[in-house]
Amino acid sequence: MSASAQPGAPAIGIDVGGTKIAGALVAPDGQIIHRERVETPAEATEQIVAAVADLVARLRERSDAPVEGIGLAVAAMLDPAAGHIWFAPNLPWRDIDLGAMVAERVGEPVVIENDANAAAWGEYRHGAGVDHDDMVLFTVGTGVGGGCIVDDRLLHGAFGIGGELGHVILDPDGPRCGCGNKGCLEVFASGSALVRAARDLVTSASPLGEALRERCGGDPDRLEGADVTELAQGGDLASTELLEELGTRLGHGIASVCAVLDPRIVVVGGGVSAAGELLLGPARQAFARHLIGRGHRPTPDLVLARLGNDAGVVGAAALAREHRAAGRGEG
Amino acid sequence: MSASAQPGAPAIGIDVGGTKIAGALVAPDGQIIHRERVETPAEATEQIVAAVADLVARLRERSDAPVEGIGLAVAAMLDPAAGHIWFAPNLPWRDIDLGAMVAERVGEPVVIENDANAAAWGEYRHGAGVDHDDMVLFTVGTGVGGGCIVDDRLLHGAFGIGGELGHVILDPDGPRCGCGNKGCLEVFASGSALVRAARDLVTSASPLGEALRERCGGDPDRLEGADVTELAQGGDLASTELLEELGTRLGHGIASVCAVLDPRIVVVGGGVSAAGELLLGPARQAFARHLIGRGHRPTPDLVLARLGNDAGVVGAAALAREHRAAGRGEG
Amino acid sequence: MSASAQPGAPAIGIDVGGTKIAGALVAPDGQIIHRERVETPAEATEQIVAAVADLVARLRERSDAPVEGIGLAVAAMLDPAAGHIWFAPNLPWRDIDLGAMVAERVGEPVVIENDANAAAWGEYRHGAGVDHDDMVLFTVGTGVGGGCIVDDRLLHGAFGIGGELGHVILDPDGPRCGCGNKGCLEVFASGSALVRAARDLVTSASPLGEALRERCGGDPDRLEGADVTELAQGGDLASTELLEELGTRLGHGIASVCAVLDPRIVVVGGGVSAAGELLLGPARQAFARHLIGRGHRPTPDLVLARLGNDAGVVGAAALAREHRAAGRGEG
Amino acid sequence: MSASAQPGAPAIGIDVGGTKIAGALVAPDGQIIHRERVETPAEATEQIVAAVADLVARLRERSDAPVEGIGLAVAAMLDPAAGHIWFAPNLPWRDIDLGAMVAERVGEPVVIENDANAAAWGEYRHGAGVDHDDMVLFTVGTGVGGGCIVDDRLLHGAFGIGGELGHVILDPDGPRCGCGNKGCLEVFASGSALVRAARDLVTSASPLGEALRERCGGDPDRLEGADVTELAQGGDLASTELLEELGTRLGHGIASVCAVLDPRIVVVGGGVSAAGELLLGPARQAFARHLIGRGHRPTPDLVLARLGNDAGVVGAAALAREHRAAGRGEG
Repeated sequence: MSASAQPGAPAIGIDVGGTKIAGALVAPDGQIIHRERVETPAEATEQIVAAVADLVARLRERSDAPVEGIGLAVAAMLDPAAGHIWFAPNLPWRDIDLGAMVAERVGEPVVIENDANAAAWGEYRHGAGVDHDDMVLFTVGTGVGGGCIVDDRLLHGAFGIGGELGHVILDPDGPRCGCGNKGCLEVFASGSALVRAARDLVTSASPLGEALRERCGGDPDRLEGADVTELAQGGDLASTELLEELGTRLGHGIASVCAVLDPRIVVVGGGVSAAGELLLGPARQAFARHLIGRGHRPTPDLVLARLGNDAGVVGAAALAREHRAAGRGEG
Repeated sequence: MSASAQPGAPAIGIDVGGTKIAGALVAPDGQIIHRERVETPAEATEQIVAAVADLVARLRERSDAPVEGIGLAVAAMLDPAAGHIWFAPNLPWRDIDLGAMVAERVGEPVVIENDANAAAWGEYRHGAGVDHDDMVLFTVGTGVGGGCIVDDRLLHGAFGIGGELGHVILDPDGPRCGCGNKGCLEVFASGSALVRAARDLVTSASPLGEALRERCGGDPDRLEGADVTELAQGGDLASTELLEELGTRLGHGIASVCAVLDPRIVVVGGGVSAAGELLLGPARQAFARHLIGRGHRPTPDLVLARLGNDAGVVGAAALAREHRAAGRGEG
Repeated sequence: MSASAQPGAPAIGIDVGGTKIAGALVAPDGQIIHRERVETPAEATEQIVAAVADLVARLRERSDAPVEGIGLAVAAMLDPAAGHIWFAPNLPWRDIDLGAMVAERVGEPVVIENDANAAAWGEYRHGAGVDHDDMVLFTVGTGVGGGCIVDDRLLHGAFGIGGELGHVILDPDGPRCGCGNKGCLEVFASGSALVRAARDLVTSASPLGEALRERCGGDPDRLEGADVTELAQGGDLASTELLEELGTRLGHGIASVCAVLDPRIVVVGGGVSAAGELLLGPARQAFARHLIGRGHRPTPDLVLARLGNDAGVVGAAALAREHRAAGRGEG
Repeated sequence: MSASAQPGAPAIGIDVGGTKIAGALVAPDGQIIHRERVETPAEATEQIVAAVADLVARLRERSDAPVEGIGLAVAAMLDPAAGHIWFAPNLPWRDIDLGAMVAERVGEPVVIENDANAAAWGEYRHGAGVDHDDMVLFTVGTGVGGGCIVDDRLLHGAFGIGGELGHVILDPDGPRCGCGNKGCLEVFASGSALVRAARDLVTSASPLGEALRERCGGDPDRLEGADVTELAQGGDLASTELLEELGTRLGHGIASVCAVLDPRIVVVGGGVSAAGELLLGPARQAFARHLIGRGHRPTPDLVLARLGNDAGVVGAAALAREHRAAGRGEG
């Protein structure tokens, strides 16, 4: 830690994805002061680490004071305490000490965290979860991710794999999930599931699929999740049904997670959450019918995320700032 | 707290059930020094509180030194910090300050905790979970209960209902659970589910049910879970299948909970766990096929509980002792 | 055949049930001219045969002309061509030549038929199925039975067990059916299933079950299917949902049977059909969403049965009359 | 009918598929005397009819005597009595009088029949179903088709859509089927389902999919059903499991159809049946556990088809021959 760092100074959050690396200078109140972004280098680890260090340098230049910590959000299974990455599905990283590698390049310690966890912390500190001690985030994008705040702390689990909310099981004999197992929430309630269901309808013989067929000119491969959402917003029955089915499954998954964690608030983010109430309405209904103890207890709030794609960098910056404060004995 | 209480002295654990109240003097190493037990009075709260106080008095008499805390395990939804009971399905308690009521009668503070949580803490401190920081307990008895240790702390949740592991959802359109919802783990994997499935087989037209029919003299109402276990141990195909189905469902539930909490060890207790490997074998197999990240990660241990029916009193005593130590600034 | 029998004369239909034997003199147009009924003797086969013969004698007395055939509907697996009963779940009959036994007592040939098949033939000739060559009957009573008319003939199957429509499979891992298998339509859509679901709701902790609890004074064993129907008719949400769930399952079963048989009309009878559109509405909706070829083909009609409890005797009489006419070379 | 046609002469069977038209001269005992084949013209109906007529002419040249009937098997929903096609998913035919069109070109009446029905009749008269009056055929190819013989007659249904055995429902909320509905047998138990499941495994993160990944060089689109069968025959666990899952689903579908039709024998044909016992073993086991009345009744045989791809032309020829004989009053 630089001796001159000040509590009111910004911290740096970096979100390392498979195609791009986003960075931001984040104020103590969670506001983004400045953004930078680069393509994720296709080559080896060294290049990616260099790109991250370069991004850090560019962000530091924009800060008047030394930054109050650097946090990295990574789509990987990792051990945050050790700064160690075990496995990243979309990056060439297996068993590397990422924390130490980046720290050496930037000349100060860095905090690393799983990206969905970082996003959850972002929403918890500066978004939809402010003022609650127990929060759960579901991110419904290509897959379904999750992050859990239990008693004011991020849940990591014994092996650093806790909070994989997309993989609670809704149907043990159901379709194969991308994770290799069967019937996970993700296989029913992800953006990929939505697209797949829409394409199946297009290639089926059903008259229901007419609007979807028109939308993609009969070529199911051109259909994306946003098409379904827009058609549903325009009143197409089949598209509305597809979002309704997804929302219902999501609601079942949320109810299952609430039986374990009993959060105060459930936040739904990710690309598919752009469908808003078309998704959240059915989710809320299914959730309410399956919540343990319903009728004898308060119902957790079910709300949309507020930070959008910024949740990861905001959360990573907040984690880094708090880690540093704890090191100073303020935490 | 009595000024003369000593860290090496025993603590008192009390387990308040619907039909009996069990109490024990528990040594710091978890050994039970002395037991007492009374019937649960059928009348009002006051009588039950008096019976608890009486049990405490009898246990104190057996201790050479003032006890190191008093803990109560109760089958109820409650707020342990406030000592407040919200709702108890099998006791006449709605919204009462049980902690204060008992404390007044016994002249010192008492700790209250949900019974499955207390049992989990017992196994964690002195049973199957010793030496791990993240543990989950499933109790498979009349219902399916649970208790979760996350990062060395009992999980309570925002409303004190966390760890209701019997109510993760295995089939959202499945049969009605005793909780009023549908397709919970409990409806497939409890002792009641086992008995119901066995009775259904007896009253069905299937030749498979022959041994079960003989066992109960054709009267399905005489059939109990222990009959199924014994028949299975003797090689009856249908009974073995019934335990196998229960174990498989349990394994699916465990896998779902592991996706959320990522524990280091999963402990299975409760009456049905007497079936041992006839239950745990299929559970382990189903769990292994549905564990998130399998093939890229270590598998949590899946083991039988060690403390049997004592887990509740041992855990309640341990919680009370630790609470007192924390009050002294040792925790 | 008696030489003086006349085509315009009535025929006799008998419905042998587990608790009563109903008989009727039935006109060629299906109208019932006269009824008789006796308790089913609890003793052996001989007494039941005698009771049937006695009923035939009393009915003959009420006919001006010799009757145009005698038909018996029996709740049994049987071979109608041979007049042979293989197995009757609720009667003391295993492997007996019932046709010959009754014929000897009444002095003329008798036709025997499975009761659901006889009911289907009754509806086909004189009820809801008039004017169609392909009809399916679902009887939703204690269990779910069925009878199928394919190309103007009753479907019997190779072993005389055809048309067991209550045992098409809706969920291969579902609850145990009374037949010993799992997840049959009957386990979800019978009157027994309705009562069981209602009782489960009563004993559950759910506030939803309040009206049902009141209805039975808190004693679930006092609850019957008719209570659910009446509460639903009075607007109770839970009861309406229970019928809706039953109807939905029934609709799925109907769609499955239609993929095999492609009937022109589907008739729903039995005690639960008293719920009328509360049952048929959801059934029709679920059926429409699962009918093979929907959008490219006409939809079979889905209607209520018309003959009520008389379907069996009317059908048995019609079968006997037609059998006799065929013997005369009129068929 | 030509006056000089003789009962011992061959009949012609034609199988009109989406990519080729196969024709054969078929002896009265079902043996194929001579084959011809052409590509299916891509253009309009007229060209296809001309190609069929041309094929008939070439086959007639090979016969010493005038042929004993001409039968056409077509992958279409049709009315055989009227010779009318309603809808063909893979041919440019909507509402045409195909029978009359071909008859005009070839100068004698022709019989038309749905292709799966024709195949069923082929197996019934000259293949696996010889000597039984009640037979069911499941063809497990790209889709799942079916044909049913009830009481020695082909089942057509009221709208000519009977015997769509691939569309009995196994899971009403299951994945979308090509027919537009959800959870049909076909979506779980067709060759397409097998390929899809294998590809999902290849793209999943599961170590189980290793052999499949190697087989296709990591490109899931190169994987075909035959790869799965060959890998399973070589002992690959995942491929064996995939066939086992398919067979289990097929067994459930068979059990459901048997509850309706009660056949004497169930025949399984189509491309996937090349897997033999790897498919039929699990199917038989699942079937046995779900057969209505099991334990109180004989079990229908479950066997492989015998005629392979010839079933259609053999069946079409047999139907044409019998139709002609019936016209002469021999039937």
